[in-house]
Amino acid sequence: MRAVDIITKKRDGHELSREEIEFFIRGYVAGEVPDYQAAAWCMAVYFQGMSPLETTYLTEAMAFSGATLDLHDVVDFVVDKHSSGGVGDKTTLVVGPIVASLGVPVGKMSGRGLSFSGGTLDKLESIPGFRASLTISEFKHQLRTVGLVVAGQTHELAPADGKLYALRDVTGTVPSLPLIASSIMSKKIAAGADAIVLDVKVGRGAFMATEEAGVELANLMMQIGRRLGRRMAALIGDMSQPLGLAVGNALEVREAIATLHGDGPADFRQHCVDVAGEMLLISGRAPDPEAGRRMAAETLHNGAAWAKFLEFVAAQGGDVAALENPDRLPKAPFIAPLLAPRSGYVTQVDAREVGFTVVDLGGGRGRKEDPIDPAVGVVLTEAGKVGSRVEAGQPLLWVHARSEQGLAHGLARLAQALTISDEPVAVPPLIHRIIR
Amino acid sequence: MRAVDIITKKRDGHELSREEIEFFIRGYVAGEVPDYQAAAWCMAVYFQGMSPLETTYLTEAMAFSGATLDLHDVVDFVVDKHSSGGVGDKTTLVVGPIVASLGVPVGKMSGRGLSFSGGTLDKLESIPGFRASLTISEFKHQLRTVGLVVAGQTHELAPADGKLYALRDVTGTVPSLPLIASSIMSKKIAAGADAIVLDVKVGRGAFMATEEAGVELANLMMQIGRRLGRRMAALIGDMSQPLGLAVGNALEVREAIATLHGDGPADFRQHCVDVAGEMLLISGRAPDPEAGRRMAAETLHNGAAWAKFLEFVAAQGGDVAALENPDRLPKAPFIAPLLAPRSGYVTQVDAREVGFTVVDLGGGRGRKEDPIDPAVGVVLTEAGKVGSRVEAGQPLLWVHARSEQGLAHGLARLAQALTISDEPVAVPPLIHRIIR
Repeated sequence: MRAVDIITKKRDGHELSREEIEFFIRGYVAGEVPDYQAAAWCMAVYFQGMSPLETTYLTEAMAFSGATLDLHDVVDFVVDKHSSGGVGDKTTLVVGPIVASLGVPVGKMSGRGLSFSGGTLDKLESIPGFRASLTISEFKHQLRTVGLVVAGQTHELAPADGKLYALRDVTGTVPSLPLIASSIMSKKIAAGADAIVLDVKVGRGAFMATEEAGVELANLMMQIGRRLGRRMAALIGDMSQPLGLAVGNALEVREAIATLHGDGPADFRQHCVDVAGEMLLISGRAPDPEAGRRMAAETLHNGAAWAKFLEFVAAQGGDVAALENPDRLPKAPFIAPLLAPRSGYVTQVDAREVGFTVVDLGGGRGRKEDPIDPAVGVVLTEAGKVGSRVEAGQPLLWVHARSEQGLAHGLARLAQALTISDEPVAVPPLIHRIIR
Repeated sequence: MRAVDIITKKRDGHELSREEIEFFIRGYVAGEVPDYQAAAWCMAVYFQGMSPLETTYLTEAMAFSGATLDLHDVVDFVVDKHSSGGVGDKTTLVVGPIVASLGVPVGKMSGRGLSFSGGTLDKLESIPGFRASLTISEFKHQLRTVGLVVAGQTHELAPADGKLYALRDVTGTVPSLPLIASSIMSKKIAAGADAIVLDVKVGRGAFMATEEAGVELANLMMQIGRRLGRRMAALIGDMSQPLGLAVGNALEVREAIATLHGDGPADFRQHCVDVAGEMLLISGRAPDPEAGRRMAAETLHNGAAWAKFLEFVAAQGGDVAALENPDRLPKAPFIAPLLAPRSGYVTQVDAREVGFTVVDLGGGRGRKEDPIDPAVGVVLTEAGKVGSRVEAGQPLLWVHARSEQGLAHGLARLAQALTISDEPVAVPPLIHRIIR
């Protein structure tokens, strides 16, 4: 078998066999297939696509390219969730405690912020002392004792994906559905989840622009997961405006804390209940979707989710006192509102612009090695969400900045991101579709 | 400017600017744009193509990526020809002397055999002592004193093309029209020709399968050449069956010698007169195509072309005695005919199969580093050409082999390459089209 023949076969639109895909990926990880052949192959895949079967083979080849985690020595069944990324998406911080508090173990490897989209690890690390970098044995120990663990991806798992992703990033081959789906699923498979709920976001503040694109990605990932013996479900959620009100690391932790107390913004709380409900359903913990949602909502009111959150943060070295008194979380020195320039109805809050504004404020990274400022961000008011009636001079949002200059820039940028019109518009649906 | 943005722009089907193409090619030669980005870019070009303008910029960027030859210090005007490759294509050996004998300097850098197609340098090197590797000053000196020089490509000219071609070869990006056209033309431009006649072959024994594909390539190369100030013409020639009768290095030199004496196979002689006529026309040496052909044919009859051939070979160290007595050229020890299995009309002689048979016999290379056996090959009889009437038992061709085993394999393979039918077929046209 020769790598060039595999490239040519894909270039000409033919389906690759399992053996060919394994040969290519194994060779790539071993350094026998050079970067330039992998780059040409990725571009051929970009243009010719891959069938669900080929994508499954690719996922498997990447998942088994390094160490894999088998968690069944510590728990019977592990459920995971994956968000495709968004703005203000602090869902894991609430959903993990809900599900774990109901006795279903959640062992999750999370990522960092990327472009305009925040990252769960960055959010958790705004809690003083929180440690995201765990060894595999620490991960397993906490999964067994606490039933909830959220850590960074280790480089030992799915090394082919790490190598290929870095290559795609510099060769214009990131936006390929089979490459995206196999990249996500290979990490999930390698990390040992038995069931996976996909929380796919669509719209301006997501990587998938349209509902159709999100459904296509979700369907492909579900096919892959099921072929590999995983239980799967997917929610296609709206990300035209930010999820909840807070965007920015410590600000989102505060919002998660409020939500875990049964409070917090209604849209975010509902989203968490929906995602948790699906996780409980595919785990077999809930008999039907409605029961799953009821059980999830109940843990927010009876304190079970909150207690699990504290236990989880404490286990990873986080300062529980800062959770019980959120004023001890990092705070930005400069805070000011954006006032509505006129009366009317909020018709658009460009989530992508909000995300980039937070990156500009220092809450995300321009380059991989940049440090993150946990305190900065944006907090919308209820009046600043799409569909609301707002009066001239009423605050639409608050900017939390490290400097006066940052504050001024943030306010100026966000003034362009919100649209107010005379005609009322409907509140966008929270969930476009659920795929089971 | 970033290489990844240039890849993405081409991937999305946009036209690249001159600056972007120059940045990419210059960076590639300098090692700043890595192989993997160039590979992804080539694959994007494979799928999205390039406009004639972009292809011209690419040609220019590659032509000027290293040293370029300016021959105007030794001659006023240089004409070159380029064959796109074929089976039995020894045209340069006859056309060069014709044109040079009429006072038009021919300075040519030639290549070696590739796949089923022979190479001019391999043919010339079957003449004992012939030296294809010349320095630039030797090349210029001979151009001035003899008016005819044929040498190997130096690595100093168009280094971007050498590097990119090697990469395309292992990344499945060879068959891309703009990449093929710019590769050929960049070398021609760098080598200093003022006028170029393209001898594009189409059919089973060529790299372009159809007349349409050949015309497309020729038109693109003519546009590039003209934009860069070169005089251009193209012939689209038939390569469904071998050109002339001989295929194999020394065997083709023998056929060229016969043709230079005004003898040789009629189809090959006519092809040489056609190509030389176009070279004389675009050089301004002949007032019209018919005059060019008449002048060319005359040099074959009056001995001028033959005298120039001897002078040229002698200047490059070749043994002139072997030309005057071709029995002194390398000869294969095993020679046997393929006899017609039945009477009828020859309807097909698969040039590609004949070419590969000669490679199998040792007359071409399986890998770059393989040595070549100059003596072996195949010589068709006049009866073995398409359109001929043949009687059962009459020789269709002769195989010249190094070993009995080679002979047997060659005869067996060629028995499948010729087709005889009851119905007569027309002789295929020699030239499908001339583009001026």
